[in-house]
Amino acid sequence: MFRSLTSALALFAATTALADPLPSWSATDTKSQILAFVETVTNPASDDYVTPSDRIAVFDNDGTLWGEQPVYFQFIFAIDRLKTMSEADPSILSTDVLKAAAAGDMETVLAGGHDALFEILDATHSGMNVDVFQQEVAEWLDAKQHPDTGLHYDQMTYQPMVELLRYLRDEGFKTYIVSGGGIHFMRVFAEEAYGIPPEQVLGTYTNTEYAIVDGEPVISKAPGIAFVDDKEGKPINIERTIGRRPIFAGGNSDGDFAMLEWTTAGKGARFGLLVHHTDGDREYANDRESPIGRLVDGLDKGPGMGWTIVDMKQDWQRIYTDQN
Amino acid sequence: MFRSLTSALALFAATTALADPLPSWSATDTKSQILAFVETVTNPASDDYVTPSDRIAVFDNDGTLWGEQPVYFQFIFAIDRLKTMSEADPSILSTDVLKAAAAGDMETVLAGGHDALFEILDATHSGMNVDVFQQEVAEWLDAKQHPDTGLHYDQMTYQPMVELLRYLRDEGFKTYIVSGGGIHFMRVFAEEAYGIPPEQVLGTYTNTEYAIVDGEPVISKAPGIAFVDDKEGKPINIERTIGRRPIFAGGNSDGDFAMLEWTTAGKGARFGLLVHHTDGDREYANDRESPIGRLVDGLDKGPGMGWTIVDMKQDWQRIYTDQN
Repeated sequence: MFRSLTSALALFAATTALADPLPSWSATDTKSQILAFVETVTNPASDDYVTPSDRIAVFDNDGTLWGEQPVYFQFIFAIDRLKTMSEADPSILSTDVLKAAAAGDMETVLAGGHDALFEILDATHSGMNVDVFQQEVAEWLDAKQHPDTGLHYDQMTYQPMVELLRYLRDEGFKTYIVSGGGIHFMRVFAEEAYGIPPEQVLGTYTNTEYAIVDGEPVISKAPGIAFVDDKEGKPINIERTIGRRPIFAGGNSDGDFAMLEWTTAGKGARFGLLVHHTDGDREYANDRESPIGRLVDGLDKGPGMGWTIVDMKQDWQRIYTDQN
Repeated sequence: MFRSLTSALALFAATTALADPLPSWSATDTKSQILAFVETVTNPASDDYVTPSDRIAVFDNDGTLWGEQPVYFQFIFAIDRLKTMSEADPSILSTDVLKAAAAGDMETVLAGGHDALFEILDATHSGMNVDVFQQEVAEWLDAKQHPDTGLHYDQMTYQPMVELLRYLRDEGFKTYIVSGGGIHFMRVFAEEAYGIPPEQVLGTYTNTEYAIVDGEPVISKAPGIAFVDDKEGKPINIERTIGRRPIFAGGNSDGDFAMLEWTTAGKGARFGLLVHHTDGDREYANDRESPIGRLVDGLDKGPGMGWTIVDMKQDWQRIYTDQN
């Protein structure tokens, strides 16, 4: 097909240079800023060149890489699981919050704030082998659809962000999730949905126990949440687990503020990105008043810290990866 | 130099095939078992073939990848630091254990067991910025020599194990440390000594705090040990952080038993390796009676579980990487 390896390589290089790595992003300043940053840190002649091993990029998941309305998808899973569990054994609904959740009374649940969410998560995410839990998550993803879009939840990844993850990896970055969501939940779909392997998924985690059961070692999810990967927990988890400061951080809510602050305060070129949910027609419009994905500090202080605010309505030509 | 790219590549392939990847290992059964395992899991035609992304190998550090006698090197660092700190402020020696440690009375300290070790670690590994702590570790490594060998501590890595790590990576494995040692301590030398980057160093860790100090975000080491990466903590940390079960695990003491048990109980070909310190002339001979690196269960049950016991005296032609 090609007369020589050299001409094949030259054509490949030209094709690569001409192809748009972010086709679902509109031709706005946001896109230009991302491209300019990546070109700078990967250019060996640049003062801001970064060696590949230090090209660490971290991303929140809910509201940043996939949807999070009307409520975190993992929480919808938890409610579904609570209903199934309580049909088998009604006595597990031992508190008002659990009774309200199983009855679908979300007003009471949300009024309980994060404590209520964690109570429901704890009741539904413990007492089983990790493998069994992940099998249940996989079956739930296959079976259920989102109430508004009719899509499976793992079809509701944001296509522009999936492209951004791939582009960064193509440019030598290592991409991580750093999310308030649970590690065992996210690892079920993160590799297929985002190309992010289990060891690069950081998040909230329950206690786990190691024991020999019927002669086989088993790791099971135990009651109690061992670590909450939100707010200051995010840079703490990054430092503890990755051990280097990222040069790129993306989020969408004030739960991501500390992660972006830690990332962009480092020396040299850094990129802080906040996804602002401005598209009430194609997705959801929310920021300052939303109980899920509340964004106040990021909008007020982010631009002054050099962060890029993604305006979903203006900057994204497409929203979900698997929409029609 | 070469007439064609093809012949250059052929020569390179031949050289690679002929070169011994483990030159410091004697030609014993141990070496054959390692080579056979790696050839099996990397051979696409084998029933036990493992895709590269699942080629996870985990290693203890103290006594497995570098020395640990007469006492853990991080503990020698802690004692040195305690002495320096107490010269500046004697009031920090507030307990009998701390007084004994600063006075070099190791008998009293060791009699206190792990509680005494953790008390000393806690007193010397908190209250400072992580960056400052790591700078102190680096300076200590540069300045100090081991009392018996006269080598710097980071010259006392085991050359056969360094070769094994490199060989596994060359064959598509991702190599991890999973150690009772502290992450902030080990990350100072792990990349240079072993080729293992910070994000692949798992270990014990202190609490850390995120705060804005003089306008800059800082992560500092706080009092209290958040997680002890020993015994059952090892498989728990592997599952939590890596999220997949390794296919190769190496250790040297009963603190590694659960890690090898978890690894080798998985389906398909697995490798469990225990370094048995049998060479009192070139290194140290210890196992059942040693307060550091105690190995009883591994010797009694390991062979029956298919684990390979490395006899340092028989299996290793060379001990330390930087010995003369």
